[in-house]
Amino acid sequence: MALARVARSGLRRSAGGIGSYISEKDIFYERAAGLKSFVPSLEKVNANGNVTYLSTINRVNHMSFWSRGINTTPHYRFPLAERLVEDSESEYKEPRYRYPSLEATKPGEKPRVVVLGTGWAACRFLKGLDTKTYDAVCISPRNHMVFTPLLASTCVGTLEFRSVAEPVSQIQSALATSPNSHFYLASCVGIDIDKHEVYCETVSDGGLAREPYQFKVAYDKLVIAAGAEPLTFGIKGVKENAYFLREVNHAQEIRKKLLLNLMLAENPGISEEEKKRLLHCVIIGGGPTGVEFSGELSDFIMRDVRERYSHIKDDIKVTLIEANEILSSFDVSLRQYATNHLTKSGVHLMRGVVKEVHPKKIVLSDGTDVPYGLLVWSTGVGPSQFVKSLNLPKSPGGRIGVDEWLRVPSVEDVFALGDCAGFLEQTGKPVLPALAQVAERQGKYLVQVFKRIGKQDGGKAFSAKDMSLGEPFVYKHLGSMASVGRYKALVDLRQSKDAKGISLAGFISWFIWRSAYLTRVVSWRNRFYVAVNWATTLVFGRDNSRIG
Amino acid sequence: MALARVARSGLRRSAGGIGSYISEKDIFYERAAGLKSFVPSLEKVNANGNVTYLSTINRVNHMSFWSRGINTTPHYRFPLAERLVEDSESEYKEPRYRYPSLEATKPGEKPRVVVLGTGWAACRFLKGLDTKTYDAVCISPRNHMVFTPLLASTCVGTLEFRSVAEPVSQIQSALATSPNSHFYLASCVGIDIDKHEVYCETVSDGGLAREPYQFKVAYDKLVIAAGAEPLTFGIKGVKENAYFLREVNHAQEIRKKLLLNLMLAENPGISEEEKKRLLHCVIIGGGPTGVEFSGELSDFIMRDVRERYSHIKDDIKVTLIEANEILSSFDVSLRQYATNHLTKSGVHLMRGVVKEVHPKKIVLSDGTDVPYGLLVWSTGVGPSQFVKSLNLPKSPGGRIGVDEWLRVPSVEDVFALGDCAGFLEQTGKPVLPALAQVAERQGKYLVQVFKRIGKQDGGKAFSAKDMSLGEPFVYKHLGSMASVGRYKALVDLRQSKDAKGISLAGFISWFIWRSAYLTRVVSWRNRFYVAVNWATTLVFGRDNSRIG
Repeated sequence: MALARVARSGLRRSAGGIGSYISEKDIFYERAAGLKSFVPSLEKVNANGNVTYLSTINRVNHMSFWSRGINTTPHYRFPLAERLVEDSESEYKEPRYRYPSLEATKPGEKPRVVVLGTGWAACRFLKGLDTKTYDAVCISPRNHMVFTPLLASTCVGTLEFRSVAEPVSQIQSALATSPNSHFYLASCVGIDIDKHEVYCETVSDGGLAREPYQFKVAYDKLVIAAGAEPLTFGIKGVKENAYFLREVNHAQEIRKKLLLNLMLAENPGISEEEKKRLLHCVIIGGGPTGVEFSGELSDFIMRDVRERYSHIKDDIKVTLIEANEILSSFDVSLRQYATNHLTKSGVHLMRGVVKEVHPKKIVLSDGTDVPYGLLVWSTGVGPSQFVKSLNLPKSPGGRIGVDEWLRVPSVEDVFALGDCAGFLEQTGKPVLPALAQVAERQGKYLVQVFKRIGKQDGGKAFSAKDMSLGEPFVYKHLGSMASVGRYKALVDLRQSKDAKGISLAGFISWFIWRSAYLTRVVSWRNRFYVAVNWATTLVFGRDNSRIG
Repeated sequence: MALARVARSGLRRSAGGIGSYISEKDIFYERAAGLKSFVPSLEKVNANGNVTYLSTINRVNHMSFWSRGINTTPHYRFPLAERLVEDSESEYKEPRYRYPSLEATKPGEKPRVVVLGTGWAACRFLKGLDTKTYDAVCISPRNHMVFTPLLASTCVGTLEFRSVAEPVSQIQSALATSPNSHFYLASCVGIDIDKHEVYCETVSDGGLAREPYQFKVAYDKLVIAAGAEPLTFGIKGVKENAYFLREVNHAQEIRKKLLLNLMLAENPGISEEEKKRLLHCVIIGGGPTGVEFSGELSDFIMRDVRERYSHIKDDIKVTLIEANEILSSFDVSLRQYATNHLTKSGVHLMRGVVKEVHPKKIVLSDGTDVPYGLLVWSTGVGPSQFVKSLNLPKSPGGRIGVDEWLRVPSVEDVFALGDCAGFLEQTGKPVLPALAQVAERQGKYLVQVFKRIGKQDGGKAFSAKDMSLGEPFVYKHLGSMASVGRYKALVDLRQSKDAKGISLAGFISWFIWRSAYLTRVVSWRNRFYVAVNWATTLVFGRDNSRIG
């Protein structure tokens, strides 16, 4: 308490002059949090030497320092932790400072839907949202949707990076043109469900030292579709040394690293051991992302590396490490097909559990050392720090808990969907897998819910309680697809793991895979570019310029 | 001298154990430099907060710390400066450590041509080099050529980044496929003209802390085409705050910054002043690059910003600041046309000399403050730190001095061309402008010189002295082109500034400009992509996803 009091007086002293920024910020977060207590801690400080995914990881870490929902349990704060105070909520109920904000809508204005995120769920919802009834505000640290199933292809140059990115203002043009709709390039760091406000912070500008700009946005309806984070299972060294494959800039970094290693391995006088290490690409996780990336890599090696890096072509090696079986959600015959095909393509499949990751080697739980030059980590996703920080009902597995209408119960006007949401246990329904098709279907469903709300004049805040929202959301799995390289893919049309149904593997599947993706790529521009990229890869091979 | 002795003993002590890396490195540089003395200095230490062009600037700075030719005047070294010793060359003539190297070619083997650089000159030379006669080794910190005249178009999304980058292994496939030809992704840090060796250091991996790998490469013939550096005239704050436009990653950073500012300006509660600052794009330098970038920016604003950022469209402003006249090398009627056209397109032309650059404003020499959100610096180029460090004859202006056959006189087997080279004063010829067409023509010319040398069996080291190299290089200017935006361009076909000849401005010029560039883009792949990009920009507008 002594510390708390000292800190408090510091806070007050700093209200004018040089320190005023800090104190405003403090209060911003206090308000955002409705905080009960602060526990100074360095627990989350991450000496992340790897710039590669800093933009994402730091952002996420950053969010974990600052993000707060209301009435949350103690949070960690850095670097201002030592100045913070334990305090009751009441004292700061009235703000002493005004924060820049988008104020609540007035009577007569259209209700405002605030959407957090620009993934599959958010974008599908935004695309369908009736902008005659609602104004839309979208808040996300990236201004585009990523067409994730094709992301692996961009790492080796089969597709261009921008062919898989779709600007959100193209998906919902009202965000760019309608006077009361907006897109904000920012992260949401807290939600005040009573005041119906979200607290935001602009993203940092690469490495530029810039104070983040903070603001709040009032909502009539809130749609949380903020996605998930890669799972690392607390394994030491993963965040520092491995690459994830979730964003376009991850793919860019993987590409840069891969091309760098190909070139470094050719340097004169390099030892055989070091050469082999540099040219060893290791993928952890045998899900669709890991398998597709392995397939793309082996295609790249079989065709392009042979031609363009002939000095080192015999030393490059791809290893896919999986603790259990690869593509465990697929039909057993497809799994067998994938295993055979990858092995034939030169991908080394390995059973193993990672214990630790070092900068140049992985240590498996059986003590084996696996030296690597490139490490890609794709072992699935789990709740983000932001989701964890929200004091909302949770589903099994820690996602935001929703009812059958994707509402967050006991909280008014809040919906959650996509990878960040899961059915509450009491609904009796299972938490759906973190798949693009689930997210997209939920986005589409929520459009209908919002139409119904709009028709009943329930768009404004606090006016849709107990309103009938129509049929609950029912998910019907349409099947899974995964490419395994060399014009081959798997198509599994069974509705669940234990059901019977059609499953295909081979060239026809690959053709279905490409066609299906091509028709699902959002804009005509990108549809056109994906087709053009595929054609030029066929004709000219993959581009191997290393930019940046 | 006391310091020197202490340092020396430190050097020896560290020869084993933990310090051995440092001492090896020291000796590597000592050998590379044949150094006379080291003067510890922090003069070049650049507290570069701006990551934007860190990769390049740091590389260049890095080169300036480490790069040495032989027998050079005192150089600066950091951070090991305090450990260095003043010493005579003789003591270390025999290496105590062996460095990884590509050894000199043996009798019977093809002579090896080492090319420094991957710009216009280097790539044109490599493209034409007869690989039946020579083995080629290309050393450059980037593995692709940049089609510089189209670079400005990539900043706003008219063209994709990779459409203007051509991998050097596509330009000369022997680099990838011939057993004794190589491409090394590295910077040259020193040349030993007596031993016929170049000293190299691999580029750093983005921000990853990695010790650079050092090696040397022996050459039979050396072709220096390492390019130039942007001129900043020693103006404070330029390197820290401005963006250059010389590499593809510069264009990427400009694009990211521009899109970031467009989005930040829309944040709620932002002041009018700050909004105007964020949306003020300032270009310094009215040469072709500055004018083309201004034209592209105004196109982007007129078409895409109006549609996609309608909330802020009235506040965005482009200012082009030039000390004298824009496009001073062009015909007076074309200059007038460009001035009128840019003004009509909303580009604010301003006369002024920059005194200082601060993070958010420029101060002109008349005391005017110009707040900016994006600052692009294109005031021409000058000799790089690497070129400055070489103790070779110099042309007026400090470039590597060459004779009419692009040879460096008084030094055997060394040629220089492109922006890093200039005719020696005694040739009586003027130093040619730093233009792509000069560099390309020189590369083409040198191919013929090398053919002639090959025919006379002069390919090996020390075997082409006083050999007849045929006709000297004569430059005939084919004219200049510059686009000014909105389907308009200038074409000046006069052979020199004071000559008479055809000059055109308008749509037909723009058509000539596009056609000329399209036919000069190196590969069919990129020719195709440039055409496709132009077509999709016309149909769909420019893509505005902000990646990374």
